[in-house]
Amino acid sequence: MEKGDLLYEGKAKRIYATSEDQLLWLEYKNDATAFNGQKKAEIDGKAVLNNEISSLLFNMLHENNISTHFVQKLSTNEQLVKQVTIIPLEVVVRNIAAGSMAKRLGMAEGLPLKTPIVEFYYKDDELGDPLITDDHALMLNLATEAELAFLKESARKINDILIPFFKDKNIILVDFKLEFGRTKDGKIILADEISPDTCRFWDAKTKQKLDKDVFRRDLGSLTEAYEEILTRIGGDVCIK
Amino acid sequence: MEKGDLLYEGKAKRIYATSEDQLLWLEYKNDATAFNGQKKAEIDGKAVLNNEISSLLFNMLHENNISTHFVQKLSTNEQLVKQVTIIPLEVVVRNIAAGSMAKRLGMAEGLPLKTPIVEFYYKDDELGDPLITDDHALMLNLATEAELAFLKESARKINDILIPFFKDKNIILVDFKLEFGRTKDGKIILADEISPDTCRFWDAKTKQKLDKDVFRRDLGSLTEAYEEILTRIGGDVCIK
Repeated sequence: MEKGDLLYEGKAKRIYATSEDQLLWLEYKNDATAFNGQKKAEIDGKAVLNNEISSLLFNMLHENNISTHFVQKLSTNEQLVKQVTIIPLEVVVRNIAAGSMAKRLGMAEGLPLKTPIVEFYYKDDELGDPLITDDHALMLNLATEAELAFLKESARKINDILIPFFKDKNIILVDFKLEFGRTKDGKIILADEISPDTCRFWDAKTKQKLDKDVFRRDLGSLTEAYEEILTRIGGDVCIK
Repeated sequence: MEKGDLLYEGKAKRIYATSEDQLLWLEYKNDATAFNGQKKAEIDGKAVLNNEISSLLFNMLHENNISTHFVQKLSTNEQLVKQVTIIPLEVVVRNIAAGSMAKRLGMAEGLPLKTPIVEFYYKDDELGDPLITDDHALMLNLATEAELAFLKESARKINDILIPFFKDKNIILVDFKLEFGRTKDGKIILADEISPDTCRFWDAKTKQKLDKDVFRRDLGSLTEAYEEILTRIGGDVCIK
């Protein structure tokens, strides 16, 4: 397996071709960004932590029969993934009011929701990734009605797996963002990453934030928070 | 029938009690506001025009078996309406991309939609009336699932009545906002108003705007635009 040309560079990852058809080489970056790229920093160790956390979570999801793009870890900050065409929807699952939803609806942060909420945001940096309704997604031809239903169902299923997994580690899964992609043969699988960059994690007792809000809101050391998550879910921080 | 105490004053209307149970005295104001009240003006004749247009349209909807709160015109700027508890949802129907949806989704204003879109906005001035999804509306207990379905169905039905009505008058119905309310016996009926304050109307040939966008975007005389709408739908401008 050889690392090929750079195909895409995002805010937190670079994607390279490989010598194999339908496989891509994913490299995590140390860059931290927030507020649609308005706040930026480079944080040593972030790439390694997110690669480790995301790999561990994807493997755990595979054991729970969730299909993802993850194939294997390649190095401390790289992983091999299946090639997909990303569906330009951020699928957000919320168990507790926080972040943009709490602000939008005037809800107190920390309010538990009676039932999890699944939201779609249109992945478009220029538009600021706006919240959209199912009808908007259909109008923009982002997915079919059946695909939107599948995305929601998958997101809820993943939530049902993640909540008890984290609860067992004294971590509250407040909310998280998923991205899905279409494989060459038309199957929709989970893609992107699952990490403290894309989830809100709170310590079950102290409610201390152990995710990117530490960076967004200047609450302390991002790497310490991410290391805490990695350690609690059984990863090895010494790999750095 | 006597006009009672002032019960509520909104941006464009005042509501008074009447000597009759379950009936309210609605008075249109000359105030024009836009951008959640940030832009304001008082425009002579606006109250009379909106009262006339709205009364005419509510009567037309009654002939088409749509239940509304409208009972009868009381004076040039007043009407008698049934008492309802307003559901805090702005139900927006769009036939052509314009306004906040065009901006939110990066669509060119004027793009016809393949199928009409119905959106819900949470009526809350402090929050800026945000777009919400069905799940948000349920979470906030604004309505039940069956009620949301009824609101969407009613909005589409009203759209199907309004489009040909206006087309016949060489007016394109671009989009419009409806509000619904619950009567004392739990029935949901159309409330608020239907006027150039709450609809986007374009001249079919010139695409000239004949609605509140004239005020929002400083495009000329608001009263001339509203008078044009009233004349075309068969109203009498001389009542002023």
